[in-house]
Amino acid sequence: MDGGSIVRVFDTTLRDGEQAARINLNTGEKVQIARHLERLRVDVIEAGFPAASPGDFDAVRQVAAEVRTPVIAGLARTTEPDITAAGEALRGAARPRIHTFIATSAIHMEYKLKMNPKEVLREVESAVRLARGITDDVEFSAEDASRSDIGFLVEVYSLAADCGAMTLNIPDTVGYAMPNEFGEFCGNIIKKVARDDVIWSVHCHNDLGLSVANTLAAVKSGARQVECTINGLGERAGNASMEEIVMSLRTRSDHFGADTRIDTTRFYSVSRLVSNLTGVMVQPNKAVVGVNAFAHEAGIHQHGMLCNRATYEIMTPESVGSPGTDLHLGKHSGRHAFGERIEQLGYQLTVEQLAEAFEYFKTLCDKKKEVSDGDIEAFLLDRIIHATPERQYELRDYAVTVGSGGKPTASITLSHKDQELTEAAVGNGPVDASYKAILKILSFKPELTEFRIRATSEQADAQGEAHVILRYKDIRAQGRGASTDIIEATIRAYLEAVNRLYTTAAAREVTI
Amino acid sequence: MDGGSIVRVFDTTLRDGEQAARINLNTGEKVQIARHLERLRVDVIEAGFPAASPGDFDAVRQVAAEVRTPVIAGLARTTEPDITAAGEALRGAARPRIHTFIATSAIHMEYKLKMNPKEVLREVESAVRLARGITDDVEFSAEDASRSDIGFLVEVYSLAADCGAMTLNIPDTVGYAMPNEFGEFCGNIIKKVARDDVIWSVHCHNDLGLSVANTLAAVKSGARQVECTINGLGERAGNASMEEIVMSLRTRSDHFGADTRIDTTRFYSVSRLVSNLTGVMVQPNKAVVGVNAFAHEAGIHQHGMLCNRATYEIMTPESVGSPGTDLHLGKHSGRHAFGERIEQLGYQLTVEQLAEAFEYFKTLCDKKKEVSDGDIEAFLLDRIIHATPERQYELRDYAVTVGSGGKPTASITLSHKDQELTEAAVGNGPVDASYKAILKILSFKPELTEFRIRATSEQADAQGEAHVILRYKDIRAQGRGASTDIIEATIRAYLEAVNRLYTTAAAREVTI
Repeated sequence: MDGGSIVRVFDTTLRDGEQAARINLNTGEKVQIARHLERLRVDVIEAGFPAASPGDFDAVRQVAAEVRTPVIAGLARTTEPDITAAGEALRGAARPRIHTFIATSAIHMEYKLKMNPKEVLREVESAVRLARGITDDVEFSAEDASRSDIGFLVEVYSLAADCGAMTLNIPDTVGYAMPNEFGEFCGNIIKKVARDDVIWSVHCHNDLGLSVANTLAAVKSGARQVECTINGLGERAGNASMEEIVMSLRTRSDHFGADTRIDTTRFYSVSRLVSNLTGVMVQPNKAVVGVNAFAHEAGIHQHGMLCNRATYEIMTPESVGSPGTDLHLGKHSGRHAFGERIEQLGYQLTVEQLAEAFEYFKTLCDKKKEVSDGDIEAFLLDRIIHATPERQYELRDYAVTVGSGGKPTASITLSHKDQELTEAAVGNGPVDASYKAILKILSFKPELTEFRIRATSEQADAQGEAHVILRYKDIRAQGRGASTDIIEATIRAYLEAVNRLYTTAAAREVTI
Repeated sequence: MDGGSIVRVFDTTLRDGEQAARINLNTGEKVQIARHLERLRVDVIEAGFPAASPGDFDAVRQVAAEVRTPVIAGLARTTEPDITAAGEALRGAARPRIHTFIATSAIHMEYKLKMNPKEVLREVESAVRLARGITDDVEFSAEDASRSDIGFLVEVYSLAADCGAMTLNIPDTVGYAMPNEFGEFCGNIIKKVARDDVIWSVHCHNDLGLSVANTLAAVKSGARQVECTINGLGERAGNASMEEIVMSLRTRSDHFGADTRIDTTRFYSVSRLVSNLTGVMVQPNKAVVGVNAFAHEAGIHQHGMLCNRATYEIMTPESVGSPGTDLHLGKHSGRHAFGERIEQLGYQLTVEQLAEAFEYFKTLCDKKKEVSDGDIEAFLLDRIIHATPERQYELRDYAVTVGSGGKPTASITLSHKDQELTEAAVGNGPVDASYKAILKILSFKPELTEFRIRATSEQADAQGEAHVILRYKDIRAQGRGASTDIIEATIRAYLEAVNRLYTTAAAREVTI
């Protein structure tokens, strides 16, 4: 087998994943995810596309500064400013990689790049050489490779390797490939380029639901790096799911004779963290990390499981850190059990944060009998991790009334720079009324672009969690709130977004 | 190519899909889904497992009575009572199929069936012969085939065909197979059994994210029936997604030289209907039917799309009936536009239901500026389709107050058999308080086993939708509620579940 039996895991949750519609992570959240990816033992973290925006640049810089074990990659087109920006952002990295790409399919070259193949080759050469001047670790991708001419690809990859790109990536950019043809295609490229000193990589999209199968077919043909994301996030139908690729290789090591370095027992908690931070839910029937992935419902299946688990189970929930059933903590749980659970959920808190979280946990225990993992995550995210250091507006008091006897009515008191401001409003529901009251208080009028609510567990006394995104001018900010009172949660989420708008506006010198 | 170039689509949303944890469809809902599957032009609908429960039996009978174009299948183990029950349930069907199965892998035979291979063969023979005495259309499945000995499988399938099973199904029951080996495996079985008069079928599970790839590999090897579900519902990580299989065959007809009869433009609405009725959400990055499946976010992708859609799009949103962007109706929309949208969303209403829905739509327009598809679906499901004919408890009045100044408090008035009953309660949130007040009124104490809330669109004045499941003794009932006031929605959902508990209890002669 080519390239040894270790398959490198290249995570692009922070780049291709974050690029998905309606995802918007700030630098702190990206660092939080990157730390978890490090503990999961991924080999490479693609932290962003530094030339795309100042936020992306900053995120790559911060991740590079704080996460030291994996290689940190920054994406760049073949242009000089892109590569320079990537190099700049990665300057403090322990193991920096510049990942440069250009499209090679006829349709992309003609309509998007408006270049002929000769010009594309010149771009490849100049970009890889420039990148190699900055770092020894350079990856090259031929965008839309699966729809490119194989003869041209061999030329492109050979040139990239000659110029010093030691990782060569074959993307199925539009999710068009079929596993058997893609495996053969990758095998042919690898054979024809014929270099023992490079690592072959693949990057598959899931438009037809085949990204994991295509990735595995390429591994079978000799690819030794897989590009993927947690929960399969990414443009359109997303990228290949890391958890599905890794568990396939692990479960069927007889078939592949290759494996990754991943600590699979962390998958469940990383999946939840990414879902909580991005606001992108994981469907219950998602393989490996869905809440139903290990649920056996039919009588026949349950009977089989009782006779011998292997009748219906090819991997255990424990192997991916899935609780199977959600365990609960309650008022008799001590600080130690609480701290352990937080650790298991994948959060790393400072001593002060842990103390604060425990105190809130105790308050919550007085309000409800059992505190679920979802409850804990909700308040950790809301009150500990996201607590904005500088709050412009803070909630002092609220009172909301709904009923068949009159219109939903809210009164809200906020503190703002030593002042207390109160307003009341009616609306067509309690949330609408509350937001109208808050808008009367604010000195500016942000637009609400997203609004979501959910219960953190499946009991009426669960905490409610709300998630909003506000926009003002070209600034977007998200906010989350959690409380046993769903109305309070929606108010807190709105205010968090307002305060974040302020922080971002100040950083960008936009007047609010 | 074996068996012609038409691949038959066998939908098992109502059987394997409904078997998934926490899904609970009643007969009316199953008929509603079956009607949509018929319009989608599936070839076979597996409507249930008649011997499993009276509810399943009834659902198969009703679907068979009302849906006449596709074949209607009922599942049965190889036992005489199972096959008789399936035959009974299918008696009124236009095109009945009995689908009988037995496990053939060493581990299932030894630990679950406690039979040796000879005994299994005897079961196959007696079951298929018995079924053929009832109907000409008999399908046989070798459960856990992908982990079975191929020599034994050839014996089993040959016997089943000799006894008259004209569809032979090869399931990857535990989602263990890899596409290339599974394709080869199916190809070998097909070659060795060597019968031109049978249709080969596959049924793949998604535990490693490979169900669609495995299904397609089998089609490439000659399978001409695919078993699948809408949204990939099913036990554990679910079954292969119909929409992904069908769109792969359609998009890559060059590769397969085979196609289905499916009207793909109905996928999006069927997906939403199934999601709404089962309460199982579809993740945004789900292939084909996820809300982001056609969303192009990155600047580079958007630029490419403007130059030529084919740069990043291998199928159009129109081809699967996806709106791309959610279109909105408002107060100026007429009855005609409203009726058309309902049709597009996949609902078939009577003239009276349409009039009632339009009236509610107009009320909603007075409360909010734009009415989204999600809003329409929420009230259709809540107020039109699910309206229980006989309501035991009806909501007369409610008043709920929350705020920082005191405990959440609710007062509720329900009517029950000409009486009006009012109670009040405090709770740790508005929902908890409301449910406690309702419980004081009820003459029995159902247990709340599931509770979910969501906003039907992403605006603060969206309708809130609540979904609850109650249990009393061994009866489970679900309820949904929708309102611009999320608290009212949760109260309505609870009461709907209460009323349904009554109806089911009466049918089963359980005293409440």
